[in-house]
Amino acid sequence: MKYIHSTVALLAVALAGLTTTHAQDPLPSWNDGPAKISITAFVEKVTKEGSPDFVPVPERIATFDNDGTLWCEKPLPVQLFFTLDRVKALAPQHPQWKDQEPFASLLKDDLKGALAGGDRALLEIITATHAGMTNEEFEKIVTDWIATAKHPKYQQPFTACVYQPMLELLAYLRANGFKTYIVSGGGIEFMRPWTEKVYGIPPEQVVGSSIKTKFELQGGKPVLMRLPELNFNDDKDGKPIGINQHIGRWPIAAFGNSDGDLQMLQYTAGGSGARFCLYVHHNDAEREYAYDRQDPLAKLDKGLDEAAAKGWTVVSMKDDWKRVFAFEK
Amino acid sequence: MKYIHSTVALLAVALAGLTTTHAQDPLPSWNDGPAKISITAFVEKVTKEGSPDFVPVPERIATFDNDGTLWCEKPLPVQLFFTLDRVKALAPQHPQWKDQEPFASLLKDDLKGALAGGDRALLEIITATHAGMTNEEFEKIVTDWIATAKHPKYQQPFTACVYQPMLELLAYLRANGFKTYIVSGGGIEFMRPWTEKVYGIPPEQVVGSSIKTKFELQGGKPVLMRLPELNFNDDKDGKPIGINQHIGRWPIAAFGNSDGDLQMLQYTAGGSGARFCLYVHHNDAEREYAYDRQDPLAKLDKGLDEAAAKGWTVVSMKDDWKRVFAFEK
Repeated sequence: MKYIHSTVALLAVALAGLTTTHAQDPLPSWNDGPAKISITAFVEKVTKEGSPDFVPVPERIATFDNDGTLWCEKPLPVQLFFTLDRVKALAPQHPQWKDQEPFASLLKDDLKGALAGGDRALLEIITATHAGMTNEEFEKIVTDWIATAKHPKYQQPFTACVYQPMLELLAYLRANGFKTYIVSGGGIEFMRPWTEKVYGIPPEQVVGSSIKTKFELQGGKPVLMRLPELNFNDDKDGKPIGINQHIGRWPIAAFGNSDGDLQMLQYTAGGSGARFCLYVHHNDAEREYAYDRQDPLAKLDKGLDEAAAKGWTVVSMKDDWKRVFAFEK
Repeated sequence: MKYIHSTVALLAVALAGLTTTHAQDPLPSWNDGPAKISITAFVEKVTKEGSPDFVPVPERIATFDNDGTLWCEKPLPVQLFFTLDRVKALAPQHPQWKDQEPFASLLKDDLKGALAGGDRALLEIITATHAGMTNEEFEKIVTDWIATAKHPKYQQPFTACVYQPMLELLAYLRANGFKTYIVSGGGIEFMRPWTEKVYGIPPEQVVGSSIKTKFELQGGKPVLMRLPELNFNDDKDGKPIGINQHIGRWPIAAFGNSDGDLQMLQYTAGGSGARFCLYVHHNDAEREYAYDRQDPLAKLDKGLDEAAAKGWTVVSMKDDWKRVFAFEK
């Protein structure tokens, strides 16, 4: 016992040293200002032993939306680029698609035309591109695609179009004992192949939308076949449900950028004890994109009002971020 | 950097010391024999640096069935005792239940009669006892019940009727860098309130069956309302699906006791690299219960054959366990 105690004591000293080293500037890509201050003030009060707001390590759960919060979602969500590319890659095997909606429109890059068919069209697109294969096969398709696909504006891999200030924030929270989760409306199996490498978030800490799967033995080998049927839509009301299903704890901090994240922030704010909610506000047309209340795909409208009413942090991308992407000079 | 390196080196030495201390007898309630040897041999080969079977820490995922694998499931699964007690506790508010099936039978402890109504009867019972409240309210009901309810044979709290050898196995695996998960057909929210205290397994590492929930703001307070509708049945084929959904990795070790766990063991065995599958065989009528191929609720039939064919470990409760429960003299 004595040996264990002295090891723990030694470890505590060592970790305290490490924390001090980091604390010199945990968020170098953030300008000094109210957003940065609100983050560090929150982390300090929930991690300080003896503070009335102290939160034990296992309860330091932080949930992050992905599209528009951790990486760029304009001009289209990345998974939509993936889907378009898949349709094009598969088209030679489906010559009839040239005259068959929703594929005919997709092959002409006419997304609006393709989606005119509503939910049925969307299901057909998902079926053709995301189902009818095993999870392992899908993982390989995603891994191969994301290794080469580039963002049309930045001409960088999509995984380089992640926000440097948010990467620092993830690392800062983890260094302070937080467990960081992604809670995204995007496909869970579309994200898992690369989130650990890009964000340091392992597969078991990714919550997302999913289609149903079926367990099968194929020649003795167990596989999960991907079925053309929605399993769970991890957006809006679905986010608190997904959080509870996967984590079973209330987050103490939540980060989003649209009204699709509002329920996650409300759920987080509604727990007892110190809580932190943050919206990334895209107001930087020069370095990234500017969109909020009127955006058709990622509207931030009610969320802006509620953030103002409740004193949540709203990050001005233009003013609060020293740089947006690591590839910037 | 130098400072960090020396800290890490120090830590490695300290942890190696701890491991050695534990290794003196990590499994004292297991008799020396093939089952115990198979466990320690597996753990040693996957944790030994440089071994061809070495598995990095993040991939050391072990999944455990709960009923009959970690705690006693006879004469009835514990959640069924809970359900019966809930019906009785709620009966005064529902005087009509005296003459209304399936409740009339339940109130006379006639489970067979109650379940004669099939799925509809089951749904009515679940609706009355598990739905129509928030998750937090349900958590409190479970917590209160499990604090006082006792096993009819042992006259001990149900949470004391957990298998001491399996508690040691959980701790041994965790000491060797494994992440231990429950993957149970039981209700996820029925387990989460007590699994950390009893097994050291936190809520985010519990996978189970669930009913649907709905996010609501009740007077501004966010809640998840429990709905009378099945969300996910985490049994048989459902276990690999639940594992993928929650963890997104293939387990390298899986532990069960019935054919309901067979697909989980098949899935685990089907991954590449060293794998370990174990069945607990209930053949100890004296200290616990004896049941296998013919049991109506927890049949172990195909599983026994497949274990024999594939060389999985089958624990003879009678021969391999020095003691079954901690409360034994």
